[in-house]
Amino acid sequence: MTFKEHYRFSLNRPAPTLDSDIITLAHGSGGLLTNRLLDNGVFELFDHSELQKREDGAVLNLSGSVAFSTDSFVISPIFFPGGNIGELAVNGTVNDVAMTGGIPQFLSLAFIIEEGLPVADFWEILLSIEHAANQAGVKIVTGDTKVVERGKGDQIFINTTGVGRLHQRALLDSTRIKPGDSIIVSGNVASHGMAILSKREGLEFETDILSDTQALNDLTVKLLDEFGHDIKVFRDPTRGGMATVLNEIAGQVDLGVALESEELPILPAVKSACEIFGLDPLYVANEGLFIAIVSKKVATKMLDILRGTEKGKDASIIGSVVEDHPGKVTASSGLGGKRVVSMPIAEQLPRIC
Amino acid sequence: MTFKEHYRFSLNRPAPTLDSDIITLAHGSGGLLTNRLLDNGVFELFDHSELQKREDGAVLNLSGSVAFSTDSFVISPIFFPGGNIGELAVNGTVNDVAMTGGIPQFLSLAFIIEEGLPVADFWEILLSIEHAANQAGVKIVTGDTKVVERGKGDQIFINTTGVGRLHQRALLDSTRIKPGDSIIVSGNVASHGMAILSKREGLEFETDILSDTQALNDLTVKLLDEFGHDIKVFRDPTRGGMATVLNEIAGQVDLGVALESEELPILPAVKSACEIFGLDPLYVANEGLFIAIVSKKVATKMLDILRGTEKGKDASIIGSVVEDHPGKVTASSGLGGKRVVSMPIAEQLPRIC
Repeated sequence: MTFKEHYRFSLNRPAPTLDSDIITLAHGSGGLLTNRLLDNGVFELFDHSELQKREDGAVLNLSGSVAFSTDSFVISPIFFPGGNIGELAVNGTVNDVAMTGGIPQFLSLAFIIEEGLPVADFWEILLSIEHAANQAGVKIVTGDTKVVERGKGDQIFINTTGVGRLHQRALLDSTRIKPGDSIIVSGNVASHGMAILSKREGLEFETDILSDTQALNDLTVKLLDEFGHDIKVFRDPTRGGMATVLNEIAGQVDLGVALESEELPILPAVKSACEIFGLDPLYVANEGLFIAIVSKKVATKMLDILRGTEKGKDASIIGSVVEDHPGKVTASSGLGGKRVVSMPIAEQLPRIC
Repeated sequence: MTFKEHYRFSLNRPAPTLDSDIITLAHGSGGLLTNRLLDNGVFELFDHSELQKREDGAVLNLSGSVAFSTDSFVISPIFFPGGNIGELAVNGTVNDVAMTGGIPQFLSLAFIIEEGLPVADFWEILLSIEHAANQAGVKIVTGDTKVVERGKGDQIFINTTGVGRLHQRALLDSTRIKPGDSIIVSGNVASHGMAILSKREGLEFETDILSDTQALNDLTVKLLDEFGHDIKVFRDPTRGGMATVLNEIAGQVDLGVALESEELPILPAVKSACEIFGLDPLYVANEGLFIAIVSKKVATKMLDILRGTEKGKDASIIGSVVEDHPGKVTASSGLGGKRVVSMPIAEQLPRIC
C-alpha cells in the first residue's frame, strides 16, 4: 500500500502534537500523560452528551429488550487494503449487534497498545473509528487505554462492545428455521480474507482485492422493517467463513443446508486469488456480509430489495434448508455433483479479525 | 506463591481434558477447536438464560437509565497475592459501573490469549471469573476469544464491559460538589499496588500483602439506598491511586481538596513496604476501594454504616473539600505541616491492572 492509502483520514487532519511521536507506557498509566493524550485528540473526536470524559462509565437511556455484544480485534496487519483495525472494530461489533436483531446505538472502545506504536498510526486509527461510527450511526460513549511493553503485544488490539435496542419486529431464533427456508447472502464472499492474505504475502493482484469491512445495520433494519418475523436468523460469516456459520446452524436445528455453488457471488479477482492459494471461498472470512435464513415466500422480494441497495447489490439466494442430511451442509455444483462442506477444524488464516 | 495459592478454585475442580495442555492459535480460530473449548468448559460456568451460546450477542431486558463501562486488564503477573487477572477483570468493571451510580447486572467477557498459555491456568482464571461474578451478583452474558502468536501478547489480556440500571436515588455529578463536603475512603489504601510490586520484586514480607480486589457494588448500593442525593461522587482510585482521582476532581470543580494524612487507613505491612520502596501510598493503585464525596451532614452516619460492614470496616473520613487552593490537593501531617499532593506524571508501576 502507498502512504496515501494507509493514511486515508489523517492526510488532511494531522495528528495532534504530543510529548512524543510514539505511544509510551506512560500514556497508559492513568496519570498526566494519559490525560494529555485524551484531551489532545481522543475526546474531541467522540464529543457528545453521553461521553463523560472523567467518569468511569457512561449513562445511557435504553428501554425494553437490548442487544449486547463484544468483540476483540487482533488483526495483523493493522492496516490492510480497504481498511484498518479501527474501522473493523466499529463495523464488527455494529454487525454483531445487528445480527441479533438489534439497532446498534452505543459502543465502548478499549485499546491495548504496544509501546512504540507511532502516534500517527494511532491517530489514523482514531479517525477511522470516528468515520466508521458516524457511518454506522453509533456513538462511542466510554473507553479505556492500556499500554504494554514492547514485545508484550502487537501494535494495537481493540475491544468494542455494543448495545442497542432490539428491533420491534425482530424475532430471530434459529429454532424457528424450517425445511424449505431460503438462504440469502448479502454480497460477494471471501473478499476480507483474501485482502488480508494478499497483503501478508506481499502479493499484488492485477485488480486490488479490498476488505469488505462495512456496517450492515442499515440493511438489517430495512429488512426487519419490511419482513419482520419471516426472517429467522441473521449471521455474519467472519472467522471460519460461510462454512462455519452454516454448519453451526445445521447442527443447532438438526436440519440440512443445501447450497447451490453456482449461486455464490464472488468477485473475479477474489475467485482467482482463492484458486492460486488453493482456498475454498466458503471457508474464507468476511467482514461486511451477512447470511439471512428466511421464509421461502419472501425470499425473492427480499433479494430485490437488497439488490436495490449499494451494499446489497450483489446479494444472492444461495440455497435452502432441507430435511435431508440433518446437521450437514452440502454444496452442489452445476454439473449435478454434490459435496459435504464440513466444519473447519481451525481458521486457515489466524488473526483475520 | 505456592501452587495451592495459585490454583485456589481449580484444585477441587480440575480443568476439562482438551486436545492439548496449552492454548493454541486454533482455539481462537472460530472453528471446531474454539467450539470444543467453549463446550467443554466455558459455557457451563456461565449458564443462564441470557447466554446465547451460538449467537453473536445477548439480548437483555433493561429500562430507563443504564450505566455502561469498559475496562481491559493487562496486569502482570496474571496470578498475584490475593487474586488473579480473572477476578480482577470482573471486580474492576463491576466497580466502574458502581462508581457511576449503577447496579451492575450483566458483563461481557473477551479474552486475548497468547499461544502457549497452559489450559490449567486458563481454567483457574475461568473459575475465578465465575466466583467473582457470583459474589458480585452479575451475569456473564456474551464473550469472545482470540488467540495471538507467542511473543505477540503476554499470557492473557481480558476485557470486560458492564451494564446495569442506574440506582433510582443516584445523582452522582461532580458539579454538585460544594466546599465543606466530606471525603470518605472505604478501607485501607495501597494494598493492591504493593501486593503486585512485592510479587514482581520477589520479596516476601513477614506479613503477606494481599491485593484488595473485590466488588464494591454491595456497599455503593447500600449507601445510595440510605443517603441518595447526599452522595456527590464515587470514584475508585485504581491506576495512579488516590492522588490521581482527587486531583482530577479538584481540577474539574475548581475547588481544593484538603486531606488529613493521619486519617488515611493503611495496613502496617503495606505502610512498611511503601517506606522500603520509597512510595507515597496516595499514589499506589487500589482495586477494592472507593472514595465518596458527600454532604458533611451525613458523613459520620455514613462512616458508621460502612464500618458495620466487612468490606468497609476500616473506612475513614480523610478530609474535605475547601475553597482554598482551587484545583489543588493538599495533605496535612499531624504536626501542622501541609504539602501539595500533585497529579502524577505517570503510574509508578506499569501494568498494575
